[in-house]
Amino acid sequence: MTVVYKLPDIVAKLGGRVLGDSGVCITQIATLENARPDQISFLTNSKYRAQLANTKAGAVILSEADQDASQLPRIISDNAYAYFARVSALLNPGPEIQPGIHPSAVIGADAKIAATASIAATAVIGDGATIGAYSVVGEGCCIGAHAVIGSHARLYPRVVVYHDCVIGNNLIAHSGVVIGADGFGIAMDDGRWIKIQQIGRVVIGDDVEIGANTTIDRGALDDTMIEDGVKLDNQIQIAHNVRIGAHSAIAGCVGIAGSTTIGKHCRIGGSAGILGHLHIADHVEIAAFTLIGKSIREAGSYAGIFPFSSTDDWRRNSVHLRHLDELAGRIRTLEKQLESLGTESLNRK
Amino acid sequence: MTVVYKLPDIVAKLGGRVLGDSGVCITQIATLENARPDQISFLTNSKYRAQLANTKAGAVILSEADQDASQLPRIISDNAYAYFARVSALLNPGPEIQPGIHPSAVIGADAKIAATASIAATAVIGDGATIGAYSVVGEGCCIGAHAVIGSHARLYPRVVVYHDCVIGNNLIAHSGVVIGADGFGIAMDDGRWIKIQQIGRVVIGDDVEIGANTTIDRGALDDTMIEDGVKLDNQIQIAHNVRIGAHSAIAGCVGIAGSTTIGKHCRIGGSAGILGHLHIADHVEIAAFTLIGKSIREAGSYAGIFPFSSTDDWRRNSVHLRHLDELAGRIRTLEKQLESLGTESLNRK
Amino acid sequence: MTVVYKLPDIVAKLGGRVLGDSGVCITQIATLENARPDQISFLTNSKYRAQLANTKAGAVILSEADQDASQLPRIISDNAYAYFARVSALLNPGPEIQPGIHPSAVIGADAKIAATASIAATAVIGDGATIGAYSVVGEGCCIGAHAVIGSHARLYPRVVVYHDCVIGNNLIAHSGVVIGADGFGIAMDDGRWIKIQQIGRVVIGDDVEIGANTTIDRGALDDTMIEDGVKLDNQIQIAHNVRIGAHSAIAGCVGIAGSTTIGKHCRIGGSAGILGHLHIADHVEIAAFTLIGKSIREAGSYAGIFPFSSTDDWRRNSVHLRHLDELAGRIRTLEKQLESLGTESLNRK
Repeated sequence: MTVVYKLPDIVAKLGGRVLGDSGVCITQIATLENARPDQISFLTNSKYRAQLANTKAGAVILSEADQDASQLPRIISDNAYAYFARVSALLNPGPEIQPGIHPSAVIGADAKIAATASIAATAVIGDGATIGAYSVVGEGCCIGAHAVIGSHARLYPRVVVYHDCVIGNNLIAHSGVVIGADGFGIAMDDGRWIKIQQIGRVVIGDDVEIGANTTIDRGALDDTMIEDGVKLDNQIQIAHNVRIGAHSAIAGCVGIAGSTTIGKHCRIGGSAGILGHLHIADHVEIAAFTLIGKSIREAGSYAGIFPFSSTDDWRRNSVHLRHLDELAGRIRTLEKQLESLGTESLNRK
Repeated sequence: MTVVYKLPDIVAKLGGRVLGDSGVCITQIATLENARPDQISFLTNSKYRAQLANTKAGAVILSEADQDASQLPRIISDNAYAYFARVSALLNPGPEIQPGIHPSAVIGADAKIAATASIAATAVIGDGATIGAYSVVGEGCCIGAHAVIGSHARLYPRVVVYHDCVIGNNLIAHSGVVIGADGFGIAMDDGRWIKIQQIGRVVIGDDVEIGANTTIDRGALDDTMIEDGVKLDNQIQIAHNVRIGAHSAIAGCVGIAGSTTIGKHCRIGGSAGILGHLHIADHVEIAAFTLIGKSIREAGSYAGIFPFSSTDDWRRNSVHLRHLDELAGRIRTLEKQLESLGTESLNRK
Repeated sequence: MTVVYKLPDIVAKLGGRVLGDSGVCITQIATLENARPDQISFLTNSKYRAQLANTKAGAVILSEADQDASQLPRIISDNAYAYFARVSALLNPGPEIQPGIHPSAVIGADAKIAATASIAATAVIGDGATIGAYSVVGEGCCIGAHAVIGSHARLYPRVVVYHDCVIGNNLIAHSGVVIGADGFGIAMDDGRWIKIQQIGRVVIGDDVEIGANTTIDRGALDDTMIEDGVKLDNQIQIAHNVRIGAHSAIAGCVGIAGSTTIGKHCRIGGSAGILGHLHIADHVEIAAFTLIGKSIREAGSYAGIFPFSSTDDWRRNSVHLRHLDELAGRIRTLEKQLESLGTESLNRK
């Protein structure tokens, strides 16, 4: 079953305005390169203008600035990228939820599962856990005792939520996510590590998405906190007692060490790291592959990446890094010698 | 049901000595900032002294050196941090084990499961596998054929142990851990990779903890070895034939390549990496984000981190890294020129 | 049951030629150090020649160049390492597949499962999914609706394949692998992130191996593509719309950002990263721990690693990295001063 939209139908739902032929029938969204005549595409980066000229799309989404960049039927929006996201959601509403509990699921005593929720095959819901309205708990998920998951959540297969964690509405958690495992708390005692019980929880706000195989540890004593609107990519590691401010977005493979606070509206690039017990201000951008080793008090963009080159060049150049202090010393020596020579030369004049 | 302790009860079990009012009733441990009057807190870092002055805790744990830093009821210990860990364990003994096998679990032929062990819902135990006394195998765990898990293990939901692996007593393994997957063994043959069978095992000692989504590969021919008391955080990757010495602790996201040996009592910071076929001595500390590219023969602390700065500063400075050899050459040239000028100037005198 | 081979049996199946006593009985392959008299070993790196002299192996595999390095019964091959891989496969054929569907598995409507395939306990196969001939779907695996898996696949426990993904023949996927989770697509709209539906698929060719806990995201609009013969180690993150060329091999913990294309026959070291929207040529080697921040047009070897040292040395040297531009400026100044001094000195002559 395919749903067909005309451009005025889309604009009626999502805003913007139509230019050109408004009769074209749209069934899907696609890239400029691969779109067919029954598909709508979009231009959000002017470097794809050549593709716009050659696209077979039936219509396009353009920004106000680009409104005349094509004569195709088009929707003009002041934020074409966000508009594209909205059109994609409109055209791809996702499968309908089948409320109910699969017979192979295992439900603990006193679990509170909304009548509109869906619990898939082989999922396990712990004693006293709560699953909110219209939430979907995928195949093989394990929800710990007394954990709370709000409404409209979408847990893909094999997500684990440990006991007592609390999650708001509209969570999306992809497969392999682990929420609430013990933080890495150990104390050295006479040559042996002893474990520090991790009795805090993970508390997650509304509208959070968590990528595949990302892990968020429970707090040692207080809670680990993920505020509203945070978006986490895959394979991120968030240690105990971290707090991530609202609407921050973190790319894949980032590691954040214990008790660090990230501000609101931050953006952290892939494979970056942040050491423990630091404070990162609001509106901070951190480049991929950068280690943040001290607190950042001011909004702005930060980086610390070793530039790559051919391995031969890298070898030739990087060897000096182990002697940088000596090189700097030699420059100081040269400056002094030159100064004294210069003075001498001056004296001779 | 809450268990209440008075300070002398705690000292009777864990050692140390009481100062101040010994009648206070303690039900939980908490941070200085958030503790309530029925909770005990602790000071292990003098930078939190201001919090000690303002805490609402009913009692505190202090080191010998800090014994007079508060007049609250207090326990004095020569290792306050380890004492805190012990008190936390005392006050939070964890849920009681319910021995038995959940009806939805699937048990292979000839599996040997201790009568005191607990096998949770949807767990799968392979043919001939052994689960020791008082061990808990969580929901959805898969234990491979002929694997052996010792006593008092705690496997959280969705741990996988491949066939033939052998694990000692007191293992803690968090969700998503994979023990014994194939190492990355491939041989190039005429433009195509062919697989090298991985026929070794993973062998793990006693008292090991493994964080969520950490992976430990089985050996190619000989075994991968994790010695007693090793503590591994989340999302660590340990390749085939690695050996990790007793009581070493490794933070999140570290990768250790094949056939490397790590000594005893080492500490490795988050997201560090160690290349393959290296030997790391005992008592080595490696900083976060550091790549170790050759063997380390001496105990000590090692680092190799690119320092971060504002992105503008980073760009301005890092561009020279591709010309460091040339810069060093120019310094040498300057030194020679200056030497000859100096000589000349001397000659003229 | 142990299968016994004599050297002529092996050569009859795998090629090469026998030197020395051809009567020795071989049951397993082992390292030079640990081999017993009923085992065959191999020398592929001349630094292990001392071990060859002392091995207790009953036979060895040697390259043409090393054919006289031992008087043991031996097989000579022009690619001893690939020969070792083949002998290991011959001696370790893996468990026989038990065709059929375990009663605890859950099979969706209209799923097409080959009669020779094996679906293990607690696995879940989605509606309309296809499992090819002789494929094994391990315990707790979840195969999404309408996904297609070719013949002779080996999915270890707890692999997830999302809906509509398409995988060729001979896949090996280790535990915790997630194929087809949503890419990290978000658009900023008035201070909040909105999700971009990820409607592409993951399409994987033949002969691909994927390590434990590796994640491969589905495309945003077009597909994410993994070509034939690609080998991926553990904990790799491959973002949406990446394309990896045939016969490339990637070590553990690597992250590849969205829409990047990797060529054929590339080799990428552990924990390396590649930013998004880049093109990497065929036959490129990237060192461990290196971030690739722009496209690579030429085959070759590339690196960008900060060299480690003792932490004291590192601190002393790395402090200058934040002043490298100033240091370079001072060298320029010295050169100018010296030039003018030199000229002056020349003028005085």
